[in-house]
Amino acid sequence: MNILIVHAHPEPQSFTTSLKTTAQQTFKKLGHRVEVSDLYAMQFSPVASKEDFLELNQPDYFNYALEQRNAAKQNLLAPDIQAEIEKVKRADLIILNFPLYWTSVPAILKGWIDRVFVSGLFYGGKRFYNHGGMAGKKAMLCLTLGGRTHMFGENSIHGPIEHYLSPIQRGTLAYSGFEVLPPFIAYHVPYISQEARETILEDYITYLTHLDQLEPLKFPKLEEFDEKLYPL
Amino acid sequence: MNILIVHAHPEPQSFTTSLKTTAQQTFKKLGHRVEVSDLYAMQFSPVASKEDFLELNQPDYFNYALEQRNAAKQNLLAPDIQAEIEKVKRADLIILNFPLYWTSVPAILKGWIDRVFVSGLFYGGKRFYNHGGMAGKKAMLCLTLGGRTHMFGENSIHGPIEHYLSPIQRGTLAYSGFEVLPPFIAYHVPYISQEARETILEDYITYLTHLDQLEPLKFPKLEEFDEKLYPL
Ligand SMILES: Cc1cc2nc3c(=O)[nH]c(=O)nc-3n(C[C@H](O)[C@H](O)[C@H](O)COP(=O)(O)OP(=O)(O)OC[C@H]3O[C@@H](n4cnc5c(N)ncnc54)[C@H](O)[C@@H]3O)c2cc1C
Ligand SMILES: Cc1cc2nc3c(=O)[nH]c(=O)nc-3n(C[C@H](O)[C@H](O)[C@H](O)COP(=O)(O)OP(=O)(O)OC[C@H]3O[C@@H](n4cnc5c(N)ncnc54)[C@H](O)[C@@H]3O)c2cc1C
Repeated sequence: MNILIVHAHPEPQSFTTSLKTTAQQTFKKLGHRVEVSDLYAMQFSPVASKEDFLELNQPDYFNYALEQRNAAKQNLLAPDIQAEIEKVKRADLIILNFPLYWTSVPAILKGWIDRVFVSGLFYGGKRFYNHGGMAGKKAMLCLTLGGRTHMFGENSIHGPIEHYLSPIQRGTLAYSGFEVLPPFIAYHVPYISQEARETILEDYITYLTHLDQLEPLKFPKLEEFDEKLYPL
Repeated sequence: MNILIVHAHPEPQSFTTSLKTTAQQTFKKLGHRVEVSDLYAMQFSPVASKEDFLELNQPDYFNYALEQRNAAKQNLLAPDIQAEIEKVKRADLIILNFPLYWTSVPAILKGWIDRVFVSGLFYGGKRFYNHGGMAGKKAMLCLTLGGRTHMFGENSIHGPIEHYLSPIQRGTLAYSGFEVLPPFIAYHVPYISQEARETILEDYITYLTHLDQLEPLKFPKLEEFDEKLYPL
């Protein structure tokens, strides 16, 4: 397998970075090829803007999605975007590795999605969900957070973590055609013991070693809806 | 009322910008004071980083939340962050005005949250939800999107839009103590007629004129949970 890890943490000594490194080493041992986009180290720009295109189709009225579609066709995407697209294209599996910021991804990772998941390539027309541009590839989240397990779920103080992850797992990854594997979630990491954190890293090695035994998350199939996307 | 509109669209002629301008004009007519943070015009940086602090408490191990807490206390936040915090402090109501990007906020707006909602001021210890740092203030989303109304909701192709908005409405705004008003959502805007869009702007004026008649969204209260945040 070719694996792309997209990593979004500003501190190289952080636990989130240890998870990234653990994945890298585990996959290499298993004989897979691994690429890493370390967004902070790359100083990746997260702002969708006119700079993302070598030429604009409509310079007097900036429409980001239309410019993406045009640029993807005409090879006019900025080199930093094109490089990330090539990495995604090479990958059989992508892992987004991040600390939860405001029950979501850090802005630098949100911007990686906004800029890299270009219209026309990742989706377009009726190409989404099981017909999305990335159909045939897998994706997975690996995240750390401050909260405890019992604070999430029905009737818990914050409600189900799946709701918070839905913009990324459903609205982004599944929508673009990725088969989404269950997320690996490291709860409460700043507050637990060193040993407990080491156990999490061992659990992650086991998780990654048996990825093929994981049941992918369930999302809609276009075949369950009519032409206008009403349920059949 | 003092109102802060945080606006995140790169094109000044866009419909999303028209919604921002409509709100600005409507509130002024009603006798309110309005400030606008136009994030693209300000070239607001969305990346949480070491640059956010005039001095670091722990330069050899970067912990963003701890540095926020320290800097908020010691007046060491970067001027662009401090300026936004002052705007939020002055505001009785904040409106986040944006096009939906990947069922979420554009990265530039996510980064406004990551950097401005500092630990120690917006939340900290047991100060969250109804005890959050911004208790007493209101907040509201105004968003545009490409999808149609019938594509969202139970059993629809994308599921309930509330799930996608939960990181921002629940995990961010309600968590920080804001009373969250129901969002104003403009569906399908690039594909409808000019007249239909003008009707949306008129509806928005009516909406804003009767904000006090809106029932705020319901979120947990700390009093419903025990010391360890298990439900009582
Ligand atoms: C802006 C912002 C918003 C946030 N929003 C939320 C939120 O909505 N919900 C929520 O629950 N949390 C939230 N948090 C908390 C955040 O998710 C956690 O602080 C973060 O996930 C912790 O991971 P880290 O990698 O930064 O940990 P670090 O603090 O870097 O590391 C934790 C500990 O692990 C140790 N460590 C590093 N490597 C190893 C190793 N190999 N083995 C053992 N120990 C190791 C470190 O030395 C350190 O002591 C937020 C934080 C910020 C800054
Ligand atoms: C990266 C990215 C991700 C996206 N993800 C999603 C998603 O997850 N889900 C989804 O549903 N959509 C998504 N979209 C679509 C996006 O949400 C919509 O394109 C956007 O909300 C449209 O708003 P706009 O302001 O950009 O419209 P524009 O295209 O700028 O404007 C639409 C039309 O309104 C006209 N207009 C401007 N002002 C007025 C006025 N005063 N009166 C009448 N007409 C006016 C304009 O001339 C134009 O013809 C995504 C788009 C991008 C670029």
